[in-house]
Amino acid sequence: MTIMDRLYKESIAKGPICVGLDTTLKFLPQYLISKDWSDGEKITEFNKKIIDATEDLAATYKVQIACYEALGLDGLSAYSATVKYARNKGKIVIGDVKRGDISSTGDQYAKGHFSGDFEVDIMTVNAYMGEDAVSPYYPYLRDHSKGLFVLQRTSNPSAVDVQNLKVGDQSVYQIMGDNIEKWGKDFMGESGFSAIGAVVGLTRPEEFEAIQDQCPHTFFLVPGYGAQGGTGEDIAEILKRSRCAVVNSSRGLITGHQKAGCEDEGFADYVRKATLAMKEDILQWL
Amino acid sequence: MTIMDRLYKESIAKGPICVGLDTTLKFLPQYLISKDWSDGEKITEFNKKIIDATEDLAATYKVQIACYEALGLDGLSAYSATVKYARNKGKIVIGDVKRGDISSTGDQYAKGHFSGDFEVDIMTVNAYMGEDAVSPYYPYLRDHSKGLFVLQRTSNPSAVDVQNLKVGDQSVYQIMGDNIEKWGKDFMGESGFSAIGAVVGLTRPEEFEAIQDQCPHTFFLVPGYGAQGGTGEDIAEILKRSRCAVVNSSRGLITGHQKAGCEDEGFADYVRKATLAMKEDILQWL
Repeated sequence: MTIMDRLYKESIAKGPICVGLDTTLKFLPQYLISKDWSDGEKITEFNKKIIDATEDLAATYKVQIACYEALGLDGLSAYSATVKYARNKGKIVIGDVKRGDISSTGDQYAKGHFSGDFEVDIMTVNAYMGEDAVSPYYPYLRDHSKGLFVLQRTSNPSAVDVQNLKVGDQSVYQIMGDNIEKWGKDFMGESGFSAIGAVVGLTRPEEFEAIQDQCPHTFFLVPGYGAQGGTGEDIAEILKRSRCAVVNSSRGLITGHQKAGCEDEGFADYVRKATLAMKEDILQWL
Repeated sequence: MTIMDRLYKESIAKGPICVGLDTTLKFLPQYLISKDWSDGEKITEFNKKIIDATEDLAATYKVQIACYEALGLDGLSAYSATVKYARNKGKIVIGDVKRGDISSTGDQYAKGHFSGDFEVDIMTVNAYMGEDAVSPYYPYLRDHSKGLFVLQRTSNPSAVDVQNLKVGDQSVYQIMGDNIEKWGKDFMGESGFSAIGAVVGLTRPEEFEAIQDQCPHTFFLVPGYGAQGGTGEDIAEILKRSRCAVVNSSRGLITGHQKAGCEDEGFADYVRKATLAMKEDILQWL
């Protein structure tokens, strides 16, 4: 069973929910801010409580490493503690690291994020440098049940600067989709999806359906729910055709307590409620 | 004076040499390997000795963060110590991090690499996500004299998977070049170059000359010398037209002692010799 098989199964069993731990200090409740701990320790505690409160609802957790790098070594200690905590609970963890480098340098990133302090199950990858930025991970996909999500079509406005450029009658993101299907052929799982998935945003549902048709063996990580405009109904339309995706929400979930004005130890109950609401918002249409 | 002005001046004064600290344990001399230190401490000592031995020859140092991430928190402590050491000596340091993310996530990377433990002067950026992956750094270019090198045309074989795709009569990497020129307009320095440079490999000198003509305000970071096939004469041909680049070599320099069979404290003399040989190999044609 590949990691993408496991993720597929989790997305069926628990719902297609990816809880995004893009944790910054401004999201922390007051009782944590006032502790006599390092910033990294406060963030770790915040994340652990969220994982405890949502583990039965989340198919996976995505941890955005940029938020941790911003705090230097202390922040990366929190990243390490967070991914370890979730993985020790048997959860699938996606390192949203968007790394992209080649040959011996790519090997170093593979080692860094698929073993040791920062080990995750799946990492996000940027393939502007082509297959050379993806192939360093192949031994880990083959021998250590790891997976990738390669950036294909992102939901930000200027994604069109590169991704929507027209090459003949195809867009760059469609060519990237063909490549992801091709690269994944050697890493197929029993679910029908390969261990090389893709990141595709949800800003244009009709675009997503075309990508889905073009890439039938690709499992998708979908940002864009909530804060970025995608609705539960949009997602359900896609999942009705194939259960080929998990949907990420970060701020929309992990600031649930702030919207409710809760600054004490009960904060994670509100994150749970927000996660449950997201799940129901999607599943009601399925 | 922008950071790219400083780099331009240094490349004239010292030669267009970028010493790449892609340091892994296998490059360390035996006397360091056998010390009772952490791997990160050994690597830090190796890097410091190389910086001491080459600071009058190097226009800049490029530190490849992948090699440090591979060793987890201990490795990133070495990254932090290395970039601090070189910057405290007044050297320009390029963080070869190839980050690329948008809006609030991009802000976190900017904070992480332009302040605090990992602060560098210039960072490499991947703009597959378009200008949104570059604009989070603009405040740092404007207010803190920082700079970027955006991936444009890399020298690895599969770069063609994306970068050489034809959009009308232009390649994706040419469109990226136009974008880099456009994005840099607000960050022009007195040298005629903007604070947003580009990474362009040296595998095809005629391709480089066309890029140079197309992007007259762009300063280039050029990998591909030595190990990757570019010659001093190739580089000199480019620099004769405009002193618009620094050239990186990593393994070719920082393994100078291994080629000479030196495993003791004198190792950095051989790294210096290799750096001097690279400088002479380029300058003899200028």
